[in-house]
Amino acid sequence: MNYKLMGRFIAQILAVEAAFMSPALALALWDKDYQVANSFLITIVLTLGCALALHLACKKTKAGFYAKEGLVCVGLSWIVMGVMGCLPFVISGAIPSFIDALFETVSGFTTTGASILTEIASLPRAILYWRSFTHWLGGMGVLVFLLAVAPGSGRKDGFSMHLLRAESPGPDVGKLVPRMRQTAMILYKLYILITVLNVVFLLLGGLPWFDSICTAFGTAGTGGFAIKNDSIAGYSPYIQNVCTVFMLLFGMNFTCYYLMLLRQFKTIFRDEEVRMYLGIVVASIALIAWNIRGMYDTLEETVRHAAFQVASIMTTTGFATTDFDLWPSFSKGILLCLMLIGACAGSTGGGFKCGRALLVFKGLKRNINQVINPQRIEVVRNNNHRVNERVLDNTNAYLAAYMCIMIVSFLVISLDGFSLTTNISAVVACFNNIGPGFEMVGATGNYSAFSGLSKVTLIIIMLAGRLEIFPILALLSYKTWKN
Amino acid sequence: MNYKLMGRFIAQILAVEAAFMSPALALALWDKDYQVANSFLITIVLTLGCALALHLACKKTKAGFYAKEGLVCVGLSWIVMGVMGCLPFVISGAIPSFIDALFETVSGFTTTGASILTEIASLPRAILYWRSFTHWLGGMGVLVFLLAVAPGSGRKDGFSMHLLRAESPGPDVGKLVPRMRQTAMILYKLYILITVLNVVFLLLGGLPWFDSICTAFGTAGTGGFAIKNDSIAGYSPYIQNVCTVFMLLFGMNFTCYYLMLLRQFKTIFRDEEVRMYLGIVVASIALIAWNIRGMYDTLEETVRHAAFQVASIMTTTGFATTDFDLWPSFSKGILLCLMLIGACAGSTGGGFKCGRALLVFKGLKRNINQVINPQRIEVVRNNNHRVNERVLDNTNAYLAAYMCIMIVSFLVISLDGFSLTTNISAVVACFNNIGPGFEMVGATGNYSAFSGLSKVTLIIIMLAGRLEIFPILALLSYKTWKN
Repeated sequence: MNYKLMGRFIAQILAVEAAFMSPALALALWDKDYQVANSFLITIVLTLGCALALHLACKKTKAGFYAKEGLVCVGLSWIVMGVMGCLPFVISGAIPSFIDALFETVSGFTTTGASILTEIASLPRAILYWRSFTHWLGGMGVLVFLLAVAPGSGRKDGFSMHLLRAESPGPDVGKLVPRMRQTAMILYKLYILITVLNVVFLLLGGLPWFDSICTAFGTAGTGGFAIKNDSIAGYSPYIQNVCTVFMLLFGMNFTCYYLMLLRQFKTIFRDEEVRMYLGIVVASIALIAWNIRGMYDTLEETVRHAAFQVASIMTTTGFATTDFDLWPSFSKGILLCLMLIGACAGSTGGGFKCGRALLVFKGLKRNINQVINPQRIEVVRNNNHRVNERVLDNTNAYLAAYMCIMIVSFLVISLDGFSLTTNISAVVACFNNIGPGFEMVGATGNYSAFSGLSKVTLIIIMLAGRLEIFPILALLSYKTWKN
Repeated sequence: MNYKLMGRFIAQILAVEAAFMSPALALALWDKDYQVANSFLITIVLTLGCALALHLACKKTKAGFYAKEGLVCVGLSWIVMGVMGCLPFVISGAIPSFIDALFETVSGFTTTGASILTEIASLPRAILYWRSFTHWLGGMGVLVFLLAVAPGSGRKDGFSMHLLRAESPGPDVGKLVPRMRQTAMILYKLYILITVLNVVFLLLGGLPWFDSICTAFGTAGTGGFAIKNDSIAGYSPYIQNVCTVFMLLFGMNFTCYYLMLLRQFKTIFRDEEVRMYLGIVVASIALIAWNIRGMYDTLEETVRHAAFQVASIMTTTGFATTDFDLWPSFSKGILLCLMLIGACAGSTGGGFKCGRALLVFKGLKRNINQVINPQRIEVVRNNNHRVNERVLDNTNAYLAAYMCIMIVSFLVISLDGFSLTTNISAVVACFNNIGPGFEMVGATGNYSAFSGLSKVTLIIIMLAGRLEIFPILALLSYKTWKN
């Protein structure tokens, strides 16, 4: 293990995190809320101190940096980010319990949006800002940010590739351009551009600046932390529709936007994952709107709520405009399935990912054909390109890991004695980085009643879900640590 | 497609089924219940008539018989068996609705044990006998029986192998002896032997002959139809413990018993699947007994109920001695996980199978190691033998198919509007051939309230579960039917 390079890298991550806390500090000072300002100041100093100590302790090295180091480095960075990021909540007294604050922060960074808070609207603005900002930062990834802005001195593409592969969502990492650093930069530029667009559209609807920015952060990261107790329900239909559209946009593969800039529109609409994603969204909205007909006054309201909730769950955001726990079972069943599938690979959304589901289907179809005709040999194709057998293997292994982790964590949180539906949906909602589930953890509920053990379990699976399992499994595997 | 050979084979299956109905006819005559006797007589004549017509229509052929034909043949046989087997229920008026009767019969043959009946104990004895006997017949498989007893004239081992592979449970079919026919014969002899032992132990506990035989049928096939309204709860603790032990025995790989006859005891206890199976059973009993402490009067009663329910669910039998729906969530969570895992490959039990779960784990472990060290190449070993990559691929495809089928059928039955827990557990319990689930379909509930569409869906997944998915998928795949 190349501890030195890892240490230096984590020091940089911490420095970036500290820098990203300064707007919250400024906001607290502007609001003359000196207690909150103090908590951010202490955290920033502490974080920078740790970064400096780590940087000095780990001298420069020329030792290699391999896939294993990439996984461990990403896993550790996210844990460290969560621990430092939760300090303002604890120190300011907004969330006095450390486990609760860590849960909230990890839920933020992993863009889950599961909350232990029962009262949100009365929190200080700087705290709300930081809470929402963790979504934005976690959506595209801090490591990707670092790769985009850090000077490339002494770093090979291999180093970046291992990190990006470990942090990026989806079965296979596509480079937009030959150099990793430029890919990361393009991704962040697109991310900022669409977020700004989102803010503008919200402002046009008459939403105040603060609300617009925080809501856009939650939408961009497909996170789901809102700054009102009733999530998005209190906003106007226009604002709700803007959220629906932008949630769907942030659930698309960002490669699409790059292709859009290159004016390759045909390529986008021929992409099988995009077609599957949009197809599922449209079908789900239609089925749910039909199923909940009569529950709302007008057709417009019915479709609006159906579309909003489908977009929110499918993209793993987790905003809500209505209590979908009161919907009929069929609608809830569809939402549960959407939770499992998730957004597109290469988006800020979580879940199993449409692209992966597509590969699983295709692999399965080939397998059925081979059982029927054992002599035939078939290759699996995606967008007319042959899929590497290794990618197929990994996708199947991912499905297996996905199932195992869900089963184990479901058993652990069952110890708290809540209902089966609560437990199943809590695990699905945290692991897939959605946020709300059903019953106790439904759209109007929260995670505060769970025990410490359950919260720690949910923290681990939120991280595992965001980092796509392997970095966390690598951290937990003894083979990683033996030389 | 070799329709002629398939037709002749299905004719034989029908003849065997008609023959197996005659004890029920005799019992009805003995009980002087002429209405029921009449229903069996009509069914037998009808079944034999169909068999004869089919046999005459399909002339002998020398055309080949391949994997595809094997799958389709097995799938069709089971459907035909279900349709003919349900006629006595319909004609006698015990279950007037055809869909309900088909559900009950398929539930019997697939050894699911899910029932639409609310009142069982008052049914005629011949009807109860046939209902339980479907379990025994379905447990080892009618096709396996036919292979064991039918004259081998004109049949190659390839023919038998394709059929046996399509009907037998588990990721890989092991031949006990080089010739398929003898393997089938040994399996049936062992099956009969242990069933007889089970009857003897039940008789020793003072259970009447009729109860002993029907209960043994339900245990041997890991089915779960009981002849009392309260399942096994009304019987003595001794009888309950006998059931526990025999359920666990029938959930073991039958190869073990063959090895026992050969006195190779070490090989059995070194078998990784057997270890996993027994390990899970012991751990689950301990955890549940701890979790439900205080709910029953004595430690003996607590452990007895825990052990009975674990054995019943793990082996996918579905008998009950207590209403486990009232147990705490943790215990229910464990039972739900046991439902998903299921019994050993090569047993009469259903579910995903321990052996398959083991292969998935091992494949996953290798995959994690390869992500950590991409250069390394590892093979997966099972009982110190290298596992064929094709078997691993098929196991992963099986997991994918398993998930897809559960999700689709869950959505369909959600249309009926029952609770999420009811719907999830109904799908899990039917697909894994267990029987009872939770809430509405719990130990004291039944499936009568579902709509016709849901019942048909559940019939399909019971068949898919028993035949391990691929025969049913082959029936539904258009590639099967195009030349």
